[in-house]
Amino acid sequence: MSGFSAVELITAKRDGAPLSDEAIAWVLDAYQRGEVAEEQMSALLMAIFFQGLSPRELTAWTDRMIASGERLDLSGLSRPTVDKHSTGGVGDKISLILAPLVAACGAAVPQLSGRGLGHTGGTLDKLESIPGWRASLSNDEIRAQLEDVGAVICAAGSGLAPVDRRLYALRDVTGTVASIPLISSSIMSKKIAEGTSALVLDVKFGNGAFISEVERARELARTMVGLGLAHGVKTVAHLTPMHTPLGRAVGNAIEVTESVEVLRGQGPSDVRELTLSLAALMLELVGLDVDPATKLDDGSAYDVYRRMILAQGGDPDAVFADAPHRYVVEASRAGYVQRVDALAVGVAAWRLGAGRARKEDAVSASAGVMVLVREGARVEVGQPLFELLAEDQSHLERGVAAIADALSVNDDPPDFPRLVSENVIRG
Amino acid sequence: MSGFSAVELITAKRDGAPLSDEAIAWVLDAYQRGEVAEEQMSALLMAIFFQGLSPRELTAWTDRMIASGERLDLSGLSRPTVDKHSTGGVGDKISLILAPLVAACGAAVPQLSGRGLGHTGGTLDKLESIPGWRASLSNDEIRAQLEDVGAVICAAGSGLAPVDRRLYALRDVTGTVASIPLISSSIMSKKIAEGTSALVLDVKFGNGAFISEVERARELARTMVGLGLAHGVKTVAHLTPMHTPLGRAVGNAIEVTESVEVLRGQGPSDVRELTLSLAALMLELVGLDVDPATKLDDGSAYDVYRRMILAQGGDPDAVFADAPHRYVVEASRAGYVQRVDALAVGVAAWRLGAGRARKEDAVSASAGVMVLVREGARVEVGQPLFELLAEDQSHLERGVAAIADALSVNDDPPDFPRLVSENVIRG
Repeated sequence: MSGFSAVELITAKRDGAPLSDEAIAWVLDAYQRGEVAEEQMSALLMAIFFQGLSPRELTAWTDRMIASGERLDLSGLSRPTVDKHSTGGVGDKISLILAPLVAACGAAVPQLSGRGLGHTGGTLDKLESIPGWRASLSNDEIRAQLEDVGAVICAAGSGLAPVDRRLYALRDVTGTVASIPLISSSIMSKKIAEGTSALVLDVKFGNGAFISEVERARELARTMVGLGLAHGVKTVAHLTPMHTPLGRAVGNAIEVTESVEVLRGQGPSDVRELTLSLAALMLELVGLDVDPATKLDDGSAYDVYRRMILAQGGDPDAVFADAPHRYVVEASRAGYVQRVDALAVGVAAWRLGAGRARKEDAVSASAGVMVLVREGARVEVGQPLFELLAEDQSHLERGVAAIADALSVNDDPPDFPRLVSENVIRG
Repeated sequence: MSGFSAVELITAKRDGAPLSDEAIAWVLDAYQRGEVAEEQMSALLMAIFFQGLSPRELTAWTDRMIASGERLDLSGLSRPTVDKHSTGGVGDKISLILAPLVAACGAAVPQLSGRGLGHTGGTLDKLESIPGWRASLSNDEIRAQLEDVGAVICAAGSGLAPVDRRLYALRDVTGTVASIPLISSSIMSKKIAEGTSALVLDVKFGNGAFISEVERARELARTMVGLGLAHGVKTVAHLTPMHTPLGRAVGNAIEVTESVEVLRGQGPSDVRELTLSLAALMLELVGLDVDPATKLDDGSAYDVYRRMILAQGGDPDAVFADAPHRYVVEASRAGYVQRVDALAVGVAAWRLGAGRARKEDAVSASAGVMVLVREGARVEVGQPLFELLAEDQSHLERGVAAIADALSVNDDPPDFPRLVSENVIRG
């Protein structure tokens, strides 16, 4: 007899009373055992949506999510561990470049990732375009690859914070996803269980992110940084605008190709710059005094990338098959590109087949959108704006329908740039 | 394809957006069909707890609860129909007196009731103390008895607003009971489906009621009156203090005995006065110009009561068996009784066996508390304050433990009385 009752806990949270550490541990454990019912947990989650969780409650909640499963021990490695997590953006292929780059600078990067859902792509989906590459590694394989190569990008095993999977599925059907404490505990429980000693959070805001307002993104960033520090993980956050796609490629194989360009010292400047900003933060956290730009330019980051892909069975020299169905959107008037809308491009790539609507769906490797102009560019009538790629005509048509509102052209140049003050959040 | 999605509805309500009539109809119907899951409905109920329902939404919600089942047709009766509903109090036996009294004044009173749960007793539980009396009547029997006798107190059939039963069970385990729109729609859907043309609501407030604050009780009263009027039922509400038990008897058989005393023109004055106030409101609603006090004093209300009990198989002359285990609480000091606490007395009666903790529990006919002094009375050392009645020693001991804090004595008389301004709420 624990002395706790689900109804009393729900009612207390509903009425704004704090929950004790013991009460939080009990309710998550009892939910995991099936003694707290789904309808009770969903009522509690909705009460948390309205009343929030204090830092102390959130730490206890996250503790218990971590304790619901295993925790990787990466303490025996010869290099310091540091990871990055992005809240998700359109064309966000940063992990593919960043993990080998930071490893090339001397750290070990254990990047345990998920798959994409909705209009933002997943890192694993992108890498699975590479023939032979496998996402699933054992804990021993992860440790060995971190020691040998310095970087691993693989699927987070089902043993990490398993209660999060059930909570996330429940939140998804009960309108309780968009809660800062629930988002924070979901992300951080897995990252802390993964065993990294340091973590940089790339918190996106804007219409292509799942949070639009910069101040709400800042609150999420502060909350996650606090959680990381409370669990002994050196954590900082970077606020990144996500109004327009990152880079030119939005899809799977085409994002791998673009990542390789950046790893070879070329590629779109926005992708290179964000990667270098995040790399500098990661290196600072683990005390490595290296200029990461030199590791892109001298080919050593690309070398680590090739070894990382090879170690997981992939062929880094594989040439991707072109998508068989293509459509070029052209400018119908001359002028300046006012905006290239991240959400519209993300949805178009999703409709083209690059993303999935449900967890169990497959994604197309070759589908996606190539963004051929940037915001602020001068375009003439007939100039190509987007190239849409799909495996069949019906996906292509869905993508064409979705891209219609993604770009606007006007007579005057738009106001630039969208700056964020204090875009690094430290504890 | 309805075009509605449970997640979208939950999210809209969560964010304070109004739900359309069609959306409300869809979600309740889909819940009844099992297409909206329990965990989704509980999240919606919690969102309603925080965001409320507008009068328009509440009317649509209640409409659909009524439409989930049958609606009795009482329009063919020769007398006007009028009912009373109490939100529940300690020692509240008013229905047993009021229904025959108002029938004796010329109205038909279709009192379809529930059973008690927790510390407030249920009207059916009290009447079931009478040998042979049965609570279940068919709709034809209800109509016939209303025509012949003018009053019926029976169990509300499972066909009235059946979705309320599922919603109530869900609210009970998810901390979503204490919501004014949800309480209002639960009560009013059943009362409207019952087919009465007029309704008086006895809304209790105080520590023995489920609502403590008079202003919250007033809000509940206004909401229910609005709902009744919106559905064509002439409705008024009466705000009644419930700080101290109503009458002297708190239990089942002992409340029947006290009700008979009042029906014979005697009994405790507080019970008589509240009954007459509610009767006057009921008679006013149906336009009957009769002084109800005369019907208590001339025996005609008691005569209707006897016929009502007989019609349902009960023996109105039955003598109740005394409870075999009794304990008298005596004053340990002299002075004035400051308060006789309704909640403590209600809980004591419950522990003695008069109430149930779960729906499926049985109740004891003979258990209960006789309150032997009123607030403000002068008592001497050793004077009896309460007599506790139980069927066995273990229930008796539980009752003794619960009654300890029910009464306090001090040197000076307490402040009296607790008055409520504007205790009648009209539409």
